[in-house]
Amino acid sequence: MIKAYVFDVYGTLFDVYSVKEKCQSIFPHKGEAISQTWRQKQIEYSFLRQLMGTYRPFHEVTEDALRYAILLHGGEPKESVISELMDAYLHLTPYEEVKDVLQQLTDKHRAVFSNGSPSMLTPLLQSAEMNELFTSVITVDENKQYKPTKAAYQSVVETLNVAKEEVLFMSSNGWDITGAKQFGFQTAWINRASLPPEQLGVKPDFEFHDLTGLLSIEAKSV
Amino acid sequence: MIKAYVFDVYGTLFDVYSVKEKCQSIFPHKGEAISQTWRQKQIEYSFLRQLMGTYRPFHEVTEDALRYAILLHGGEPKESVISELMDAYLHLTPYEEVKDVLQQLTDKHRAVFSNGSPSMLTPLLQSAEMNELFTSVITVDENKQYKPTKAAYQSVVETLNVAKEEVLFMSSNGWDITGAKQFGFQTAWINRASLPPEQLGVKPDFEFHDLTGLLSIEAKSV
Repeated sequence: MIKAYVFDVYGTLFDVYSVKEKCQSIFPHKGEAISQTWRQKQIEYSFLRQLMGTYRPFHEVTEDALRYAILLHGGEPKESVISELMDAYLHLTPYEEVKDVLQQLTDKHRAVFSNGSPSMLTPLLQSAEMNELFTSVITVDENKQYKPTKAAYQSVVETLNVAKEEVLFMSSNGWDITGAKQFGFQTAWINRASLPPEQLGVKPDFEFHDLTGLLSIEAKSV
Repeated sequence: MIKAYVFDVYGTLFDVYSVKEKCQSIFPHKGEAISQTWRQKQIEYSFLRQLMGTYRPFHEVTEDALRYAILLHGGEPKESVISELMDAYLHLTPYEEVKDVLQQLTDKHRAVFSNGSPSMLTPLLQSAEMNELFTSVITVDENKQYKPTKAAYQSVVETLNVAKEEVLFMSSNGWDITGAKQFGFQTAWINRASLPPEQLGVKPDFEFHDLTGLLSIEAKSV
């Protein structure tokens, strides 16, 4: 029995590569490369800070990753540029089916659960006019433990006051789905990029190309 | 005062991309892509298993990463192919200056310290005829805590019976150098790929393009 639909944010609800054009306008011909390295290092730095025990909020991790990405591709990470691109990250584009699907999931908890710090999540959801679609916004910044640690996922069950197995967790990130499944959530991997399954010993309960797949579960569970 | 020279193995002493030709012979035109994804996922899977608390030895992590890499690039991960490529990983090529430099560092502890499991490290060092160049072979598999956790680096000071600050640790991997410096080692980043510095709040004590840079430290410390 599912009592809560819980959604990862970056890559799952919002396209993190929608900053590509803004990157491109500042660094000609390098927009795609910078936006890809930015995302890759953002994830890596969250893992590394968790592993080393040197937690910093996700907006700092994201800024550090951006600085690295610009340097790697031969640019100069001027503060004005960092500031402009960090602002763009507060206005990412949601994937096109997201709002429509969320509006159809009405009778359960609908939460976002993200590595993102409140200073990133609040303006992002506001910018996309999506606040009202969720009953809770949960961030790892409360417990200061990044996904995919158990301590991170634990904050979801505490906040929503549900059992692990009553949560259906959605993420496009294979590592996030693996951590959530390992923790004990039901999971739906939103495999937007048609990637192979992670080889980490656990499998998601569901796999969809985008969020519309959820509606088939919703139909069965009503 | 440095009492121990401690070396990371994969990417630092040995070229992990020297399996590229073997990958290429099995998967035409995809050797480079597979070998790069293999390495990237190997590192990611070691991070993820540490974060999730689901440690498995590095040879399993390496095999899982290889299976993912083959799938990502459209190949079929047959057991015979996995077996052949995992065997190639026991015969990686050392970087060309490695043996020459090691032979000149004679009056201190010289240890390797690796995520690699004994079943990988022993044949690798034997294959390259490098066993006798080291006074210790230390693996995270003893404590089953992957780098860059403090618990991993701690096993070095316990094994060698030296203080943190008496260790000079060498790695080509920015994340490994960051973890080691955060732990309290002196560090020399062997920046073989001329990458930007990691944006994680700590800096290595030294930076060299290859291991020959060590000889300048050795000359000063004698």
